[in-house]
Amino acid sequence: MRNLKLTLAYDGSDFAGWQVQPDAATIQGTIASAIAQITGETVLPQGSGRTDAGVHALAQVATFATESSVPTANFVKALNDILPSSVRVLKVEEAASDFHARKSARNKTYRYRIFRAAICPPFLARYVWHYPYPLDEPAIIQAAPFLEGEHDFTSFAAVDPERGRDLPVSNVRQIFSSHWERQQDELVYTVSGSGFLHHMVRNLVGTFILVGKGTLQPEDIPRILQARNRSAAGATAPANGLYLVNVDY
Amino acid sequence: MRNLKLTLAYDGSDFAGWQVQPDAATIQGTIASAIAQITGETVLPQGSGRTDAGVHALAQVATFATESSVPTANFVKALNDILPSSVRVLKVEEAASDFHARKSARNKTYRYRIFRAAICPPFLARYVWHYPYPLDEPAIIQAAPFLEGEHDFTSFAAVDPERGRDLPVSNVRQIFSSHWERQQDELVYTVSGSGFLHHMVRNLVGTFILVGKGTLQPEDIPRILQARNRSAAGATAPANGLYLVNVDY
Repeated sequence: MRNLKLTLAYDGSDFAGWQVQPDAATIQGTIASAIAQITGETVLPQGSGRTDAGVHALAQVATFATESSVPTANFVKALNDILPSSVRVLKVEEAASDFHARKSARNKTYRYRIFRAAICPPFLARYVWHYPYPLDEPAIIQAAPFLEGEHDFTSFAAVDPERGRDLPVSNVRQIFSSHWERQQDELVYTVSGSGFLHHMVRNLVGTFILVGKGTLQPEDIPRILQARNRSAAGATAPANGLYLVNVDY
Repeated sequence: MRNLKLTLAYDGSDFAGWQVQPDAATIQGTIASAIAQITGETVLPQGSGRTDAGVHALAQVATFATESSVPTANFVKALNDILPSSVRVLKVEEAASDFHARKSARNKTYRYRIFRAAICPPFLARYVWHYPYPLDEPAIIQAAPFLEGEHDFTSFAAVDPERGRDLPVSNVRQIFSSHWERQQDELVYTVSGSGFLHHMVRNLVGTFILVGKGTLQPEDIPRILQARNRSAAGATAPANGLYLVNVDY
């Protein structure tokens, strides 16, 4: 029995998110079905975390166990030949039997792209949040590091149906780095941490927008964290600007 | 009555091409319906040329006549507020009454993108032809200029249902420049000319592929032109790598 570790990129636009669902196309379900075609085995690959409908990944990590005789090196091409072009397997490696894509993760990095110019090129529409309205960008940039450190992120967490079942009950997470920067027409947020709660990055972005509009000041972030109340923070930003960039083990 | 000139960008992936059709989403039909919502007038914008299903545009040009009192400057935002994010109006200008998007065009430029690396990022899949197989790229680059000049392009033309009705009967066109270049993982073709026949750029690309595979030599291009026979040239390359880049008047 091998424990295979997949590194995956996907365009989440046409999927109902990572997690398998009975009547919707999901990344997990699509990969499971491609694995079944190759190995004849019914497995559900376990991801480093779920991504929501419309969220993209540059390097999601997932594992599955197989007794198939297919050499590890052949899985990349075999899977990519079956998968839709919106999902690509970048790498397949043999992992230790106790390696777990979510529990073994030490650091996850997400990115959020906001397109700031008046007209968003049609080729970017699926991949950025188009927000052409006035924003105090220096205030947003200044607010970002207030998230760094160990905090209870309840104010930024959506109610999670999985919580307590398989996922940790605590809403305390550690953020290693949190920063915004201007890249040509885009305002880009990059955040790394030990783990992220349901909708957390999108809720952070929605809160940064309130800072950009002047509704909040950068110094309000610690108060919002302390409130441990979802209504203290901003709205959930759209899914299509969000990328799971990578997972470190 | 104003003659308004639109400059448009679109992601052709989800459209059945430029030209209006009864039961399919087309660019022309989508724009006509947005104009109708603004002006209350039923008009069919006339493009510089039709693009096929899946073909993209960076700056297509189209005109429509209007008696509406909406100021020209307001059309960009008004149209973009209605249109899907896959179609963007970049510019709206008042043109002379005798300006015709197709007949007044002096030069059109198309680009074709071939992605050469083994794994095509999911974010590019709609926007390039993924061709990871071996190609003699220097031979392709060498073949390109053989198309320049005035030629009968019958060998590269699909049978066109519109031909002779509204379009010119002759298959003679002038190509001002034709060249391939490597841009990181992409092999990119840029071609400018007085006009292009149905499927012409895609048929040229399919023929360049035969040169890259060694089936044809660069010096075979003049012979293929002289044959004036579609079967002398290569297959039609996929639509999704093709872009109408701009139209000069």
